Amino acid sequence: MTAELSLHGIIPPLATPLTPDGEVDVRSLERLAARIVDAGAAGLFVLGSTGEVAFLTDEQRVRVTETVVSVADGRVPVLAGAIDMTTPRVRRQVAAAAAAGADAAVVTAPFYTRTHPAEIARHFRLVAESSPVPQVAYDIPVAVGTKLDTSTVLDLAADGTIVALKDSSGDDAGLRRVILGARERGLDRFAVLTGSELTVDSALAFGAAGCVPGLGNVDPHAYVRLYTAARAGDWAAARSEQDRLFALFGLVDAAPAERMGRGSSALGAFKAALHLLGVIDDARTADPYIPLDDAEVAVVRRHLEQAGLLR
Amino acid sequence: MTAELSLHGIIPPLATPLTPDGEVDVRSLERLAARIVDAGAAGLFVLGSTGEVAFLTDEQRVRVTETVVSVADGRVPVLAGAIDMTTPRVRRQVAAAAAAGADAAVVTAPFYTRTHPAEIARHFRLVAESSPVPQVAYDIPVAVGTKLDTSTVLDLAADGTIVALKDSSGDDAGLRRVILGARERGLDRFAVLTGSELTVDSALAFGAAGCVPGLGNVDPHAYVRLYTAARAGDWAAARSEQDRLFALFGLVDAAPAERMGRGSSALGAFKAALHLLGVIDDARTADPYIPLDDAEVAVVRRHLEQAGLLR
Amino acid sequence: MTAELSLHGIIPPLATPLTPDGEVDVRSLERLAARIVDAGAAGLFVLGSTGEVAFLTDEQRVRVTETVVSVADGRVPVLAGAIDMTTPRVRRQVAAAAAAGADAAVVTAPFYTRTHPAEIARHFRLVAESSPVPQVAYDIPVAVGTKLDTSTVLDLAADGTIVALKDSSGDDAGLRRVILGARERGLDRFAVLTGSELTVDSALAFGAAGCVPGLGNVDPHAYVRLYTAARAGDWAAARSEQDRLFALFGLVDAAPAERMGRGSSALGAFKAALHLLGVIDDARTADPYIPLDDAEVAVVRRHLEQAGLLR
Amino acid sequence: MTAELSLHGIIPPLATPLTPDGEVDVRSLERLAARIVDAGAAGLFVLGSTGEVAFLTDEQRVRVTETVVSVADGRVPVLAGAIDMTTPRVRRQVAAAAAAGADAAVVTAPFYTRTHPAEIARHFRLVAESSPVPQVAYDIPVAVGTKLDTSTVLDLAADGTIVALKDSSGDDAGLRRVILGARERGLDRFAVLTGSELTVDSALAFGAAGCVPGLGNVDPHAYVRLYTAARAGDWAAARSEQDRLFALFGLVDAAPAERMGRGSSALGAFKAALHLLGVIDDARTADPYIPLDDAEVAVVRRHLEQAGLLR
Repeated sequence: MTAELSLHGIIPPLATPLTPDGEVDVRSLERLAARIVDAGAAGLFVLGSTGEVAFLTDEQRVRVTETVVSVADGRVPVLAGAIDMTTPRVRRQVAAAAAAGADAAVVTAPFYTRTHPAEIARHFRLVAESSPVPQVAYDIPVAVGTKLDTSTVLDLAADGTIVALKDSSGDDAGLRRVILGARERGLDRFAVLTGSELTVDSALAFGAAGCVPGLGNVDPHAYVRLYTAARAGDWAAARSEQDRLFALFGLVDAAPAERMGRGSSALGAFKAALHLLGVIDDARTADPYIPLDDAEVAVVRRHLEQAGLLR
Repeated sequence: MTAELSLHGIIPPLATPLTPDGEVDVRSLERLAARIVDAGAAGLFVLGSTGEVAFLTDEQRVRVTETVVSVADGRVPVLAGAIDMTTPRVRRQVAAAAAAGADAAVVTAPFYTRTHPAEIARHFRLVAESSPVPQVAYDIPVAVGTKLDTSTVLDLAADGTIVALKDSSGDDAGLRRVILGARERGLDRFAVLTGSELTVDSALAFGAAGCVPGLGNVDPHAYVRLYTAARAGDWAAARSEQDRLFALFGLVDAAPAERMGRGSSALGAFKAALHLLGVIDDARTADPYIPLDDAEVAVVRRHLEQAGLLR
Repeated sequence: MTAELSLHGIIPPLATPLTPDGEVDVRSLERLAARIVDAGAAGLFVLGSTGEVAFLTDEQRVRVTETVVSVADGRVPVLAGAIDMTTPRVRRQVAAAAAAGADAAVVTAPFYTRTHPAEIARHFRLVAESSPVPQVAYDIPVAVGTKLDTSTVLDLAADGTIVALKDSSGDDAGLRRVILGARERGLDRFAVLTGSELTVDSALAFGAAGCVPGLGNVDPHAYVRLYTAARAGDWAAARSEQDRLFALFGLVDAAPAERMGRGSSALGAFKAALHLLGVIDDARTADPYIPLDDAEVAVVRRHLEQAGLLR
Repeated sequence: MTAELSLHGIIPPLATPLTPDGEVDVRSLERLAARIVDAGAAGLFVLGSTGEVAFLTDEQRVRVTETVVSVADGRVPVLAGAIDMTTPRVRRQVAAAAAAGADAAVVTAPFYTRTHPAEIARHFRLVAESSPVPQVAYDIPVAVGTKLDTSTVLDLAADGTIVALKDSSGDDAGLRRVILGARERGLDRFAVLTGSELTVDSALAFGAAGCVPGLGNVDPHAYVRLYTAARAGDWAAARSEQDRLFALFGLVDAAPAERMGRGSSALGAFKAALHLLGVIDDARTADPYIPLDDAEVAVVRRHLEQAGLLR
């Protein structure tokens, strides 16, 4: 574990475009990554939930990282999710991500197996020991079933096990607790990133270093404007961008809850939007996600039109 | 998906012995598997929760399956857990298990990602389509966060997508609902196995085909006696074995909840017991599990002594 | 806290018949209670979940208890739910139940507020201190959000704080753990009752003293036959009754999950069945439960016909 | 349901001081209420979670409301929690609160019983029908087990069933969704209050009308300063107050999680602080809460000193 990595600003979690037969669509992914870098993003996060990491084979994961690292070309750092169940398997994922050129590995608490705070801390420390790149902790209780303790996060930050936190817990008070705790302990270089795309102005106001917004695939420019306004202290402008993005975010519920899960609907909507915008060739999501039907894609189109992204 | 597979009786989920440096201890695994077959088990289940499947790398998983298939040598079927997050990754695991000689693949609902009943059914169907071996559904809500619907299970059984259910939900009423539903729909060859090692006599009484008891690693003979008694209609003898095994099962709480998770304690205790019994060379569990200390191992020893397994 | 209370056998949790304007229908309740006593029940449990206790005002609760105590007339004991959020409010409920003639008060862990095992034990002890009648612990995690620890239950049984446990947790292994634990500690007079109406034969086989089956409102005779067969050691007959009752229990899903909650459907179905059988005058459930429509009542009727209770 | 009620600003949920024998300490409650009104609060909320409503008998609840209404004396509105399990019981609570002089009743979704969105909406409508005072919806999933749907809340606001929302869900994105939805639907007089005392500046920034901070019992002046700064657009000052209050809030963890629940610790700490500050005569919490010991009270004292509230 080495390197200096500064994480500030908008770092969208890239969707993974697929071909009709379920392979990584490299050309579409390149366009997507380039569009986001060009919009002014501060980094790229591949292989997160929005990137359908849970659905990609190990080979596909490597292809995604290599492709995006190549597009980034050193201009912005590339963070890669090293998502697997426990320490030995995560170590493999971290090694693969580093070999593919990622600048940092993003790691969750163990899942599938039952865990304990002491085991979670041990997990991050063991992963860090063998990692060639800095480690970012990924707090995503909806996926792994446990929330990272504030004290665990701060201890791991203090001893250099993790360099940043990506918080997708939706618990803004907890996020702020980490930020204030880090400040109190003098952890100046520890970066706290919110994964909640709907309260970015708030998070920046109370001290978050940046944001990892899934909706940033669809409208990266707006998130960059939001960030720029916030850094300039223009909170009214930041809030106005956030409120507009809130409305756009409604596209994730394009499909009814009776017909499919919220993952199918949200990922399907993001990809349908990117397809409608001409960024990716195919809106296919991975199995066993259920595809959006025409009426549902029309809902996505309407959201894009209302946001002024499509006419 | 082919083959005829009859699943009745005791099918312990094998622990995976490890060397001090965390590799699969093949010799110990061979001894463990042989001991269980010799005790009269009807099958062997590798790469389940008890097998620390969530902690083993893909290569280690193959080694486990190959080793146990070799010991079984066609005398009893070997079921292999194909545990991964979603359809594309599970397909890889199934293919690897089949290539390593497993007679069936055991598959859970998707996890890490949010799911929906329609997506779960689709998942099992897509996995079955490409599987060279029969598929067993694994209902384990504590690990994956969702419980399989009775109607989904029965539909998948009716169309041949799954040949059996391993139910580790702990919901005996639900288990019975599946059994009665299968009977009503004439699914005579669909086998329902309980993963609850503490109510095996009950489950056999109301129609379960067999059991997958983690504690069967430690005392396989007792589970075989229990099964034999139940099949002979000697319910008093079956109950008496179960009550004795209940007391023995207390070893899983050898370590206090403040110090480690229940997985660390239970797996650590199973392996400590196997080590004390001379079956495996090392009691090591996988990272980030926390090892039992001497006092905790002494608790395990006491349980073995009280059960008459050690003097 | 005094009295000697022996709880063995079938103790149905009585539904509370309501008039069209939502008051307790005393005449219907008398008929319901009398029918259950005449069928051979060993006791009556009023003001449980099946009795819609959460919906009844304090005055209505008293009326229910007084009515059923009067019908029981000392022939069988009457247990009354003293369901409220915390100690001071439960104490009031217990006092009211005792004053209305109940032979025992049935008490849950605190709810609405967040609890801790030490607080739960303290709750039961404080309630017992001031209770004029014996206390039965009611383990119903689906309602209160916490499961009673086995060790807490056994400690409370050992010091006389509780005389029995009504276990509606659905966790049959846990139920058995309590039974074996009580046996080991010599708590011969501590009665463990299962509230799971679908695994009664199993529970009786492994040592439960009796059962509190909601479906016993609809077919009390069958549960009494089941109990009698089990006590005679005729497990095949017990199982056969249970399997038949399992099919009848399907009526609780008369209404689809999209239209109403499972409580509305189950309580509505129990009451529709009692109305169709001529036991109660009106099938009304309490607000805000949603009433069954005609098609849903027809589903209930079909179940009664198939069970031979209606022609 | 009538009246005009404007809810903007800081509306602390009053703790309920108790005498050593568990009765409402009227004199202490008067002092507490007066102190909060004098600090500039916009209203008083009695009988919330912070008020230990779940522990108070019906008579005690009336006494609390009458006492605080008398102190408020029309200067600020008094909101009263009408906390009970279901519609018929809540109606009684609402009637009692109105009779005691409350200006509005605060009502949760049903609990203890299993619910469904359609039943929740029906519940609020039925309560409103018979309520003499305006109804405020109380979204508190940690207590009742369900989160109110945004669409349900907006529908109830649109038809006048509820005049405000008190959101204690901790889900700031959801809170904002309601605020934006209300704006879009032109519900100008619908007030959204956050119950999250740690992100008040954020909530006010994105449109909340006010806050119901439990910590406002201890330091009402700071919350009023925070609100005033926010309304003046001085977000830096608001944030600075919030950060200071965040540190003070650490007192809720005065007692370790092994020894008691978080409710015991938080309520015990609030009351210990009020006792140390000389506002209330006794720090007693209700049964079965566990009292803080001297070392834990010392932790509370230290927090007060560090916040400059005590020397």
